[in-house]
Amino acid sequence: MDITTVIGIIGGISLIGVAVIISSGLAGLKLFWSFSSVLITMGGTFAATMVNYSFHQLVEVFAIAGKVIKQKDENPLGIIDTIVRLTKKARTQSMLAIEQDVKEISNSFLRHGFSLILANVEIEIIRTELETEITFLQERHKIGQEIFVTMGTFSPAFGMLGTIMGLIMMLAKLEDQSVIASGMAVALLTTLYGAMAANLFFLPVAGKLKRKNDDEVLIKEIIIEGIISIKKGDIPSIIESKLKAYLPPKTRVRNIISK
Amino acid sequence: MDITTVIGIIGGISLIGVAVIISSGLAGLKLFWSFSSVLITMGGTFAATMVNYSFHQLVEVFAIAGKVIKQKDENPLGIIDTIVRLTKKARTQSMLAIEQDVKEISNSFLRHGFSLILANVEIEIIRTELETEITFLQERHKIGQEIFVTMGTFSPAFGMLGTIMGLIMMLAKLEDQSVIASGMAVALLTTLYGAMAANLFFLPVAGKLKRKNDDEVLIKEIIIEGIISIKKGDIPSIIESKLKAYLPPKTRVRNIISK
Amino acid sequence: MDITTVIGIIGGISLIGVAVIISSGLAGLKLFWSFSSVLITMGGTFAATMVNYSFHQLVEVFAIAGKVIKQKDENPLGIIDTIVRLTKKARTQSMLAIEQDVKEISNSFLRHGFSLILANVEIEIIRTELETEITFLQERHKIGQEIFVTMGTFSPAFGMLGTIMGLIMMLAKLEDQSVIASGMAVALLTTLYGAMAANLFFLPVAGKLKRKNDDEVLIKEIIIEGIISIKKGDIPSIIESKLKAYLPPKTRVRNIISK
Amino acid sequence: MDITTVIGIIGGISLIGVAVIISSGLAGLKLFWSFSSVLITMGGTFAATMVNYSFHQLVEVFAIAGKVIKQKDENPLGIIDTIVRLTKKARTQSMLAIEQDVKEISNSFLRHGFSLILANVEIEIIRTELETEITFLQERHKIGQEIFVTMGTFSPAFGMLGTIMGLIMMLAKLEDQSVIASGMAVALLTTLYGAMAANLFFLPVAGKLKRKNDDEVLIKEIIIEGIISIKKGDIPSIIESKLKAYLPPKTRVRNIISK
Amino acid sequence: MDITTVIGIIGGISLIGVAVIISSGLAGLKLFWSFSSVLITMGGTFAATMVNYSFHQLVEVFAIAGKVIKQKDENPLGIIDTIVRLTKKARTQSMLAIEQDVKEISNSFLRHGFSLILANVEIEIIRTELETEITFLQERHKIGQEIFVTMGTFSPAFGMLGTIMGLIMMLAKLEDQSVIASGMAVALLTTLYGAMAANLFFLPVAGKLKRKNDDEVLIKEIIIEGIISIKKGDIPSIIESKLKAYLPPKTRVRNIISK
Repeated sequence: MDITTVIGIIGGISLIGVAVIISSGLAGLKLFWSFSSVLITMGGTFAATMVNYSFHQLVEVFAIAGKVIKQKDENPLGIIDTIVRLTKKARTQSMLAIEQDVKEISNSFLRHGFSLILANVEIEIIRTELETEITFLQERHKIGQEIFVTMGTFSPAFGMLGTIMGLIMMLAKLEDQSVIASGMAVALLTTLYGAMAANLFFLPVAGKLKRKNDDEVLIKEIIIEGIISIKKGDIPSIIESKLKAYLPPKTRVRNIISK
Repeated sequence: MDITTVIGIIGGISLIGVAVIISSGLAGLKLFWSFSSVLITMGGTFAATMVNYSFHQLVEVFAIAGKVIKQKDENPLGIIDTIVRLTKKARTQSMLAIEQDVKEISNSFLRHGFSLILANVEIEIIRTELETEITFLQERHKIGQEIFVTMGTFSPAFGMLGTIMGLIMMLAKLEDQSVIASGMAVALLTTLYGAMAANLFFLPVAGKLKRKNDDEVLIKEIIIEGIISIKKGDIPSIIESKLKAYLPPKTRVRNIISK
Repeated sequence: MDITTVIGIIGGISLIGVAVIISSGLAGLKLFWSFSSVLITMGGTFAATMVNYSFHQLVEVFAIAGKVIKQKDENPLGIIDTIVRLTKKARTQSMLAIEQDVKEISNSFLRHGFSLILANVEIEIIRTELETEITFLQERHKIGQEIFVTMGTFSPAFGMLGTIMGLIMMLAKLEDQSVIASGMAVALLTTLYGAMAANLFFLPVAGKLKRKNDDEVLIKEIIIEGIISIKKGDIPSIIESKLKAYLPPKTRVRNIISK
Repeated sequence: MDITTVIGIIGGISLIGVAVIISSGLAGLKLFWSFSSVLITMGGTFAATMVNYSFHQLVEVFAIAGKVIKQKDENPLGIIDTIVRLTKKARTQSMLAIEQDVKEISNSFLRHGFSLILANVEIEIIRTELETEITFLQERHKIGQEIFVTMGTFSPAFGMLGTIMGLIMMLAKLEDQSVIASGMAVALLTTLYGAMAANLFFLPVAGKLKRKNDDEVLIKEIIIEGIISIKKGDIPSIIESKLKAYLPPKTRVRNIISK
Repeated sequence: MDITTVIGIIGGISLIGVAVIISSGLAGLKLFWSFSSVLITMGGTFAATMVNYSFHQLVEVFAIAGKVIKQKDENPLGIIDTIVRLTKKARTQSMLAIEQDVKEISNSFLRHGFSLILANVEIEIIRTELETEITFLQERHKIGQEIFVTMGTFSPAFGMLGTIMGLIMMLAKLEDQSVIASGMAVALLTTLYGAMAANLFFLPVAGKLKRKNDDEVLIKEIIIEGIISIKKGDIPSIIESKLKAYLPPKTRVRNIISK
């Protein structure tokens, strides 16, 4: 579970709420809710995004976002650890000896890689199969980011659009003072909703998806390098140094082999 | 028929209408129509786009947009299926045996590719002819997108321009209170029209054209690969695995050969 | 004469004028003229552009723009037609036989190409000379576009600047009601002028220059290919098919050879 | 200590303060403080940045920024001087003779390079190890810049958001004149805070980080070139001219060898 | 002396002044001066730029800008003329014969090139030395442009910031009518100063620096080509045609050799 995403979004909204309470008391919070404003801002954003992409992509993107945010950050050192440990075991005992360990690997991409080795698949086919999976993963994540950025662009636009609509309605009933307030409320609330949705949700989540994608791709590249190395018959210490070259110098300290 | 485009545009406008009715009742809707505002916003946008492009391109782009949006999403698996099925038939029976099947293929690009094989055209000429068609298709689609993006940029600009004109007219007749309202109405309606046209129509349709172009080009590339493969004499199972490499892993499940 | 450019600009201004007349009657048009506003918006735009480029480039760009817009769109099929026709004549009769025809070619670039062949210049020198001309043509056109885009960026900025100046003058004389109106008029008119100049003239003309440049370069590339082909001694039907490959499939219908 | 960064930030704030005092006297300064405005602008910015990146990266970026700004600009001529001097000593005396000098080198990257030579590590391993360090350094700095640019984008957005919230609260209590002022104060202060944070801190510091990174990478590249050159056995005058080619012509004047 | 830069800047400011006088008389000009507004806009811009770059770079950039603007546009034909003339003299008489002419060449880069030939330096060293100088020249000019663009971005931002500060001060003293005017004056003057500085100075000068750099680099490339050609022993007519290929066709008319 990516806790900073949740803390960031809830924390951001809370801070804004606290600022309102400091200025206007608890009653001030009631001013900031309007159903028709939500309708214009969010409805317009989703409608425009649905025209831009397909409904299928829109549903999938929320699934991806949900999964990615729930997903724990995998530790690359743990992955390297597993690869080196199993390689040593396979060399000292036999390939068959690690079959049970492979089944217990939690990372499904690594498990799939080892199962290809156990099935004695050719090296070029292993590489192609695993790299294709990365390619399509990146493609899916890229569309995910794109959709969030698109929604982060449309939501302030529809917020502004709602504000103009509110002003027009207000101007048409200038004689009725009580309507002015309500008209202006709709007007400004849509801009507020649009700006909050874009700046506290859509754009930062798009950024997080990019970071998570980079992390996941790095780990998958380490795994491919490791699997290919094992298949080639490299000795464990060579594999370890090859894989650790993917990591920043400071995080390489733990010497896995010597354990 | 690309149903999400239509749902998105109509849905977006409806949601905004509902929000107006919630705030101001059905009578509120009347406030949002002004012929001279449409004239300034849409007329200005089309005039500027006509200067930018040629009249011919402007007409063609709406034809492309209409066709592309009406067009059903083709299923790449169906195309691969057809290619593999006909190849098997041609191998077990003869090239002549599939002549009738070729005539019945619904995808015109695939039909054209098979007809080139049947006419015994050389492999390099087939490739050049089919790839040239993709190049010019992409060129046409790219201009289409560009024009929609251009209109999505000009329409808010002319909306703003109309608003300033409305304000000038209003300021000139400051003594006449009834004119203020009408002046402001023109003023703000143009901005509203410009923003709605850009955010619910021009920009999302430009995005959809890009996606449709990507889908169509992918399918046409699969077809070229398949036609070239057949011409080279590859066996059906090789052709199938070559073509399926273009698809994301999950959608490859259906095993065509085994049918 | 590129009629759509003229129609677009005049049509756009007319539409806006009609919208003003619909809202405020013919007298409304008088509100939209102010000499000092023109001075600030256009003068500032030209001054800033003159700092950015040289005076020489500024003058030349209007010459280019004028010429390009006046220029008729050349039909690439006509060019190919001429090349193929003259090649056939030269083959059936002799090189000398086409000397008179060459003098009558209206396209100066094609005429120059043929005259290089008649003068028996070496193939590499022909290519270099003609390609150098395209390079410098593109360079000139690119600067032309750049200048128009620059002016399209400066003109709204100076419009805004004029509006702020008008507001400052208005605020300074708050007691005098009659001055408020005139101050606001200057203020908003400059923004209007800046927006109209940018969106109805500078930016669309920059776009048109780009399109015209692309068309002209395509035709010149066809001519170079043709001239080189003739010099190499290719037969007319080969030349025709080589040159037609530059055109979108649909426009290739006319079979020149068979005429 | 990078003194211009501190002077720039403190100087910028002071100038603005002086301008306020000139206009409104010392009492004017009190108008510009509001705790709830700081909460909305800075809190929102940090919350959104925390969603976008991980908490870990956010903490690290301030460490990097602090270190980079405190860091003295290293003089590349001094580095070249040290490299050439030690090479000469090693050649005239022996590798062992410089062991003590190496320990006293203040630049840790250069010290590490020399220690690899003393440890007789192979040339390719030296190059890989040192270049990997540059790669990860640039990666860290790039994320640092990105985060500052992101905060420079979010802070005006949250400033604007706070202003809209302030306007909504003010409009809701229109009858109470005293609240108007306080509401507007919150409203405009958030925009002010957002703009100041972005333009006097986040964006210029992002720019400075880029410049510092370029300087540091240049020096590290000179060091790598020098260490590799020594390892290859180049004579001191060749090493000096190789390394000085990295510097602009004017700064090369000091002839190190002749000292 | 680049006269258009000076005319552009002074002319732009004059035009705006004339427009003010037309609207409000000579007294109107007094409204547009405020020391504290200059302090906020310009002070803030320089402070932020100083954080972004180093103080040293900031000083140097104004030196570069001054020198570049004062510099006369060099005529490339004159340079080619000199190169060809001296080459002919050296061939007909001797290398020594041109020693005096070389000393009298006004372009220091060309003089340096010839002196390298006279000193009998090897061809590769000549090329490296001259090209290195171009590289560092472009680097210096690029930073120059960057700084001007940065200031052109910061100055409207600080203008806006000053306007908000002015509004806050005005709102705090709502009861005092005389303060409203002065507060608003500060407010809007800063935006005006920021916009004028950006659009009449920083951004156009950045553009001019780019153009001047392109011109200077072209001339220096022609010189390098010429010097290398002479060193290789090419005959004058070949050198002339090589160098003229760098110029647009129309400007090549003058036939230097035939003089």
